[in-house]
Amino acid sequence: MTTKPVIQFWFEFASTYSYPAAMRIDRAAAAKGVEVEWRPFVLGPIFASQGWKDSPFNLYPVKGDYMKRDLERTCAELDLPFALPQPFPQNSLLCARIAAALEGALRQRFAQAVYQLEFGEGRTISDPLVAAEALRRAGLDPAFVDRAQDDSVKQALRAATEEAQKLGVFGAPTFVTADGELFWGNDRLEQALDWALKGHL
Amino acid sequence: MTTKPVIQFWFEFASTYSYPAAMRIDRAAAAKGVEVEWRPFVLGPIFASQGWKDSPFNLYPVKGDYMKRDLERTCAELDLPFALPQPFPQNSLLCARIAAALEGALRQRFAQAVYQLEFGEGRTISDPLVAAEALRRAGLDPAFVDRAQDDSVKQALRAATEEAQKLGVFGAPTFVTADGELFWGNDRLEQALDWALKGHL
Repeated sequence: MTTKPVIQFWFEFASTYSYPAAMRIDRAAAAKGVEVEWRPFVLGPIFASQGWKDSPFNLYPVKGDYMKRDLERTCAELDLPFALPQPFPQNSLLCARIAAALEGALRQRFAQAVYQLEFGEGRTISDPLVAAEALRRAGLDPAFVDRAQDDSVKQALRAATEEAQKLGVFGAPTFVTADGELFWGNDRLEQALDWALKGHL
Repeated sequence: MTTKPVIQFWFEFASTYSYPAAMRIDRAAAAKGVEVEWRPFVLGPIFASQGWKDSPFNLYPVKGDYMKRDLERTCAELDLPFALPQPFPQNSLLCARIAAALEGALRQRFAQAVYQLEFGEGRTISDPLVAAEALRRAGLDPAFVDRAQDDSVKQALRAATEEAQKLGVFGAPTFVTADGELFWGNDRLEQALDWALKGHL
């Protein structure tokens, strides 16, 4: 019996930089022999506790303009399409709940389909029809969208968000290794994978 | 006659991430055949225009804690000592003015000596004796510290800061290529160098 090192991948569907991370993490992690645990959460309550009522990219427009350009460059390097949906940020609650109701490879396939629709095609992910389309692309029953209304699912997402906050997560994407080391940002993925391997030697 | 591509390196002495950038940019740029123009400025007026009266790392403590840990990891990878000076951030005005009064290799040597004292040894760079020590380590006359009081020097730093703001600089370090492309953060140095080369082909 072999066990691989694991990293938690904390992602937020409203987060632009979570998009390239979600699209490249499988290959990057597999190449290093690290397993990825996909962890959906929402940043809203965490931002609110810092006094922010909107995305920092809207609160600080010069930073928002830079982010868009930086994302264009990042996606171009990865050969990923990039189309910022309007409004920005998107309301991610519906899709985050659906992701919380899924597990393992199903959660991952759904999450990648959501990111593809949102930042690859500029679609509105708060629309239940778009969420259903993401389920369909992930090979799932589009009727699963109704599960987002289950109290147990809502509670699971709330618990995940509280867990993220306790770990010190303040933005997305964030990678957390088994020994609690935290790496923030798509550009820290490789460092997080290396850390997970080191701790596992 | 050959001309190398050039990148502007906008640095702020109070900025933690400017430290590893300042210590590694020469080698990284030389390896790719890019020339570096060292551009001192101060972030205070730019942060103030965003409504910040302190470092975002103090305004958002959870982000500040992460920054310290991330810097420890970054410096460990580069074999650089790291000691955060108190208070943080340091008042960088005196050293920024001295840097503005210097040119070329002298400015660069002085800047690296300041970063070494500040983040390598945890010294207080607003102290004229520490600034004088940085001048000495850079092979310059420590009495040059008095030049910081010249009106023309103060004006030069103000003009540089206004130029940075016009370029869209909102944090440090920032790298700007000849075609006006902007890259923010120590971790974007390689991308900025590649961009400078590409534009130069």
